[in-house]
Amino acid sequence: MEMIETRLPTADWTQVVRPSLLYRLARLFGSNPDILSFAGGAPDPHLCPAVDLANAAHQTMSENKGALQYGRDLAALKRQIQALMAQRGVDCTEEQISITAGGQHGMDILTRLFLNPGGQVMLEELVYTGIQQTVMPFQPEILTIPNHSETGLDLDVLQEHLSGGARPAFLYTIPTAHNPVGVSLSREHRRRLVDLARRYQLPVIEDDAYGFLDYDEPHNTPLKALDPDWVIYLGTFSKVLAPGLRLGWIVSPASLTANILVIKQLSMLSVAPLSQHIVSTYLAAHDFAAHIAEIQRQYCVRRNAMLEAMQRHLPPQAQWTRPSGGLFVWVKLPPGIDTEELVFQAVEEDRVAYIPGKAFVTDPDNRNYDSYLRLSFARYGPELIEEGIVRLGRTLRKAVSGQPAHGVGEMHP
Amino acid sequence: MEMIETRLPTADWTQVVRPSLLYRLARLFGSNPDILSFAGGAPDPHLCPAVDLANAAHQTMSENKGALQYGRDLAALKRQIQALMAQRGVDCTEEQISITAGGQHGMDILTRLFLNPGGQVMLEELVYTGIQQTVMPFQPEILTIPNHSETGLDLDVLQEHLSGGARPAFLYTIPTAHNPVGVSLSREHRRRLVDLARRYQLPVIEDDAYGFLDYDEPHNTPLKALDPDWVIYLGTFSKVLAPGLRLGWIVSPASLTANILVIKQLSMLSVAPLSQHIVSTYLAAHDFAAHIAEIQRQYCVRRNAMLEAMQRHLPPQAQWTRPSGGLFVWVKLPPGIDTEELVFQAVEEDRVAYIPGKAFVTDPDNRNYDSYLRLSFARYGPELIEEGIVRLGRTLRKAVSGQPAHGVGEMHP
Repeated sequence: MEMIETRLPTADWTQVVRPSLLYRLARLFGSNPDILSFAGGAPDPHLCPAVDLANAAHQTMSENKGALQYGRDLAALKRQIQALMAQRGVDCTEEQISITAGGQHGMDILTRLFLNPGGQVMLEELVYTGIQQTVMPFQPEILTIPNHSETGLDLDVLQEHLSGGARPAFLYTIPTAHNPVGVSLSREHRRRLVDLARRYQLPVIEDDAYGFLDYDEPHNTPLKALDPDWVIYLGTFSKVLAPGLRLGWIVSPASLTANILVIKQLSMLSVAPLSQHIVSTYLAAHDFAAHIAEIQRQYCVRRNAMLEAMQRHLPPQAQWTRPSGGLFVWVKLPPGIDTEELVFQAVEEDRVAYIPGKAFVTDPDNRNYDSYLRLSFARYGPELIEEGIVRLGRTLRKAVSGQPAHGVGEMHP
Repeated sequence: MEMIETRLPTADWTQVVRPSLLYRLARLFGSNPDILSFAGGAPDPHLCPAVDLANAAHQTMSENKGALQYGRDLAALKRQIQALMAQRGVDCTEEQISITAGGQHGMDILTRLFLNPGGQVMLEELVYTGIQQTVMPFQPEILTIPNHSETGLDLDVLQEHLSGGARPAFLYTIPTAHNPVGVSLSREHRRRLVDLARRYQLPVIEDDAYGFLDYDEPHNTPLKALDPDWVIYLGTFSKVLAPGLRLGWIVSPASLTANILVIKQLSMLSVAPLSQHIVSTYLAAHDFAAHIAEIQRQYCVRRNAMLEAMQRHLPPQAQWTRPSGGLFVWVKLPPGIDTEELVFQAVEEDRVAYIPGKAFVTDPDNRNYDSYLRLSFARYGPELIEEGIVRLGRTLRKAVSGQPAHGVGEMHP
């Protein structure tokens, strides 16, 4: 018998897998209790109503009415989501709602719904890595759109692409409290974006992961509320309830619901009935609006604490955004500093961690964000945030010593 | 402004979506309490340890140690799965185990791992619809292999394809208690199949969904135990614990684990930590082997009850398989009877339901199984099984009246 090669032949796209720096670093730094980590994007476990959810789980599981069986989208949960969407200013029917196993599952479903192999998609040059991973197996042509720290997505460039004939399968964006940049699109830019979407028939995937963590007045209106036809909305319970449930939702035009269901079935038969029943039971028994108000208040305090500590403790060569919501502050250091190299020094010498800017670039050859970093203020209360920023200040002062100051503090104060 | 077409442009494959007759009928018939339904493939909720799982959930959630947070594959659960695999005769390392959101998620992961768009796959002519759905977006060339009611997968045809130069991305099969045919591959056929896989470098996806429901002696050995290199194993907690958890696993060569992880991340970040922690907590506190032995005993009683009732109450024109495990009996009626048409009459007139054979054909133009049907004996105890078969006998006698008997009872008694 001939020699056997036991390395199995896998699909072509697996030859060009780009591992996620974000996941690697968030895990590396998140597990050491001596390190103050501003790296991960997880919500604070202490703000999760664990006992209430545990009680909801016990109730619905011991009743054995569906939580443990095969299922489909739970009608009661869809009605509860419909009410949540109304709070965000989005008017939708139950038929337009599809429950997902979290925001990432929603991205995967919509990518498979819209994108052909080798097709074209439109992403910001800095964007949440999850969508980059989701499109990867399609080996797409990616049109990258600049995103500015002050104003977000560059609509002029977007329009140039579209008026030049580009017809991407979709644009994915996070208009409210962008990850990693922290910026929220202005009302005027939102209007212009949905006008462009309509004019050029561009499906826009709006990831509203941080929409319920929008601290400052006036609150941002989802794109979905401005255009029900071309915007597909992604919601999630991960940031406001518990990511371990893996539960979120899509609001789409009703014409897409049947195909979304097919993709859900082929991906996992249905979203876990267990998680659906737990959340529905929890929502029926508790004042969720009050819960959201409370975690908003807590995260707002933390944002303020981080911004104030940065003002006090970071060297004048650092600049940063002031996010009106979400969990992240985006920091710019002088060119020439490599924040990926620096993070290992920060961890080793000063016991503080962050995510380097390059973790978020869509184009791996884009070196423009090598001197940026992302800080999450989600995990700690004000005292530990202050301590962590003191430590980060030490790291950064060592790195920039001798560099000229190029402005002080917030990029748009 | 020009007229707007609001029907969003979706990926090419969505133009050829083939809706699942299985899901449609299982749901249609499963919800009416007046109907005795042998349609769905769900395990009996009464054999699910609901209270034990509810207690495990309450414990792990209120401890708030990870069940509600972002996570990865839980090491403790992987060790528990490793021990379960040892019970099935499969020796594997933790590194070879990847946790999935159920068997369907495992199929989706492996399809994305192995199959290129427009590539080639090998499926039996009758096969679980989930794998048909999973490959659909790839618009593959499907090589169909006959499966015989008595012996299963036709290895001569499989070898002809391979020796003729076919190099499919994978073969998917259910060697133990096949869905829908109920047949288990003999030891000799298993050996020959893995020999062919090695010789022709064919990845074989072994779906062992019913491997822990293998009633008769001697028990079947998984393909994975016969070849660790070319067989990728799919396991699930759906049939032995609770499908609502959406929890299963893959055992693959370790060289595939990194890419499997990438696909899991892009599909849903991680399998729900909630389900992982609940099952791990449950397994640590209970005698799972005793639980499996008990549900095996129960389902074996039901299989025997169904086979005996069929012998007594079905007309002599019907023939059927005697499954050595799993949940399904496969029934053949005389040619010319359309079991899809007949099922509506069965439900309407006799209050009994099943799944028509054509729900499982890989090639939609294959009419060879229009006169077959699948019965599940999972849902009821012996008395209701008897009553349901009495009703089915009525339906079938009306349908075959005047047709010649072509044998009595089991196809291979």
